[in-house]
Amino acid sequence: MRTQVGIIGAGPAGLLLAHLLHLAGIDSVVVEARDRGYVEQRVRAGVLEHPTAELLREVGVGARMDAEGLPHHGLVLRFDGADHRMPLTELTGKTITVYGQQEVVKDLIARRLADEGQILFASTDVRPHDLTSDQPRITFTDAAGKPQELRCDVVAGCDGFHGVSRRSIPADRIQAYERLYPFAWLGILAKTPPSHEELIYAYHERGFALHSMRSPELTRLYLQVAPTESLADWPDSRVWDELHARLELAGSEFSLREGPVVDRLLAGMRSFVVEPMRYGRLFLAGDAAHIVPPTGAKGMNLAVADVRLLARALTVFLSGGGSALIDDYSRACLRRVWRAEHFSWWMTSMLHAFPDDDRFGRRLQLSQLRYVVESEAAGRSMAENYVGLPYEF
Amino acid sequence: MRTQVGIIGAGPAGLLLAHLLHLAGIDSVVVEARDRGYVEQRVRAGVLEHPTAELLREVGVGARMDAEGLPHHGLVLRFDGADHRMPLTELTGKTITVYGQQEVVKDLIARRLADEGQILFASTDVRPHDLTSDQPRITFTDAAGKPQELRCDVVAGCDGFHGVSRRSIPADRIQAYERLYPFAWLGILAKTPPSHEELIYAYHERGFALHSMRSPELTRLYLQVAPTESLADWPDSRVWDELHARLELAGSEFSLREGPVVDRLLAGMRSFVVEPMRYGRLFLAGDAAHIVPPTGAKGMNLAVADVRLLARALTVFLSGGGSALIDDYSRACLRRVWRAEHFSWWMTSMLHAFPDDDRFGRRLQLSQLRYVVESEAAGRSMAENYVGLPYEF
Repeated sequence: MRTQVGIIGAGPAGLLLAHLLHLAGIDSVVVEARDRGYVEQRVRAGVLEHPTAELLREVGVGARMDAEGLPHHGLVLRFDGADHRMPLTELTGKTITVYGQQEVVKDLIARRLADEGQILFASTDVRPHDLTSDQPRITFTDAAGKPQELRCDVVAGCDGFHGVSRRSIPADRIQAYERLYPFAWLGILAKTPPSHEELIYAYHERGFALHSMRSPELTRLYLQVAPTESLADWPDSRVWDELHARLELAGSEFSLREGPVVDRLLAGMRSFVVEPMRYGRLFLAGDAAHIVPPTGAKGMNLAVADVRLLARALTVFLSGGGSALIDDYSRACLRRVWRAEHFSWWMTSMLHAFPDDDRFGRRLQLSQLRYVVESEAAGRSMAENYVGLPYEF
Repeated sequence: MRTQVGIIGAGPAGLLLAHLLHLAGIDSVVVEARDRGYVEQRVRAGVLEHPTAELLREVGVGARMDAEGLPHHGLVLRFDGADHRMPLTELTGKTITVYGQQEVVKDLIARRLADEGQILFASTDVRPHDLTSDQPRITFTDAAGKPQELRCDVVAGCDGFHGVSRRSIPADRIQAYERLYPFAWLGILAKTPPSHEELIYAYHERGFALHSMRSPELTRLYLQVAPTESLADWPDSRVWDELHARLELAGSEFSLREGPVVDRLLAGMRSFVVEPMRYGRLFLAGDAAHIVPPTGAKGMNLAVADVRLLARALTVFLSGGGSALIDDYSRACLRRVWRAEHFSWWMTSMLHAFPDDDRFGRRLQLSQLRYVVESEAAGRSMAENYVGLPYEF
């Protein structure tokens, strides 16, 4: 097999890259370890930044998002025993869209297949080779169990944090930056209408809690838990008790609706970046290159921003326009990556209870929260990051 | 002796309080451990917030400040090998005034003495008593060596972090919040015109440096140093070498002017707050209640904000207007105190090299610095804190 761009991974990054390249007349093949059903059901992020939604619309994959996604104009910070609404649209002129990552993935797969794009699901033992040559290769075992080789001009590593792409780069050619947090998120998906029309970020001495949603019938709820705990420690009754304790305020009319729990997850919290995001003819995009804690809702949005730049750079390069853009790819991405890394760290640090019980730190968090809702400048600063800074920023 | 308000400490807090009370017709006596010469030469902070300068003007002690102080309309953040000017006045409509704390002290002492106010310098062994009664007392040994007793209605503890006032409160009646930083500031005062017309906050891998000034002929320079170092480790030549290394950029026209060093100091960095700022008839103000690291230039300005509220509250109380304001004093002060604590911690965290060499943290610092100078909202947020939020905030 031969193509121009060999793409490892059929998540939002790999699929959108394939679509953008196709629009520019560049061939690609996506090689994905999982089957289509798995990829389409993989529940991850659920908040699209304004620039992400705009881009999906512009490139013709926004129709279902516009029909089914929930546009939001604000969010709630709940602390000091009261609700403080951040009017995102008033502060920035922009909106966010609640629309599950797996829905974006479904839309992109449907569009790729309609455009006769190749997505090789259930390809195991995927390995990139000859990355510093002009003719890199990807070997894998196809869904039928047959060894295959995909020859290409460049390889795009879109296979996430645990994928093979980043691990194919010699350790002395990249630098990793990392921070771990002393807590994890326990998330549930409950079959019940959301208890409030907007996201609620609750700062509570028992720990952070988040009220979110996936649709008018599906509520998404998260709890900060200790990193040593497992899902077995949290039967549904304990999860609901804790959610009530952290989300319900004395004297407020908010009350949390319960419903059957249809999905549960436990996720560690990590900040991670590698620099540069390129090794020879291998270009990393999305989680393969960087991870953010989910508090800022930036993960998928960063992946989209990466492939937007990568598609342009590869198009110019593969159309004989020279290597200036691919040579600048890593630098250009990392600007936005580090902005999002900082914002995600900031949101995480402001909202979580840190287990070492630093009293001074807790007072700083409250001062920060009060300032964000009381100062127009500070509120706008948070809001412009949350809805997504312009790509030109 | 008898007065209405016994004030411990003749720093900016105690002296301004005495002046504000005098304007409202309330008697006070200031008891100060040091002699007048010492107090008037004690070099400390040098940046007055907009609200501080306005207040000093309003209450008639701003004439020399307006004649000799240096109004500044911006400051420079130096990082990434370039200068980034924060246009404070453009962002906020306000200015800061470079005018030494000891000059404010001289002005206040001159005014108190002109108004026949009592400042008992060189009073040793000062101790407050009966603070939970209606008739507290301050005992001390006067400048002539004679034991004295000052009876009063209330005591104002304006004697700084190391003073007796806060230590007179039983430990179980206050809560302390504290953070120490793994570095100190080495400061010099050099007899040479400033090398630049504005303050320069330099972020450098060797550590933070600050270019500041006291007058058109006096330059103030600071270096981040290890907390274990002493002044003896830093002969002038080493100080200048290090300042050149951190402040001068390759290819820039900035060059640091040297001059005779007329003062040197080494200061630890600490964040500290006690809550509440009151015990019975004792009210704490300024450094007696809270300390900030100097990076945000907030120390003296917070002291002024405290005594502004305290003077009003005591005036109402002592004029028979009831205790509502004195009962609210601590809460009202602490709002601004925690805002300044957060800002000072934020400036300190953004600008200093942390000795544990956390690569991720250094990238966060750079992302934060770039964002502050590139986003109007973020710049205005920093600027409004730096020039001083309105007292009504």
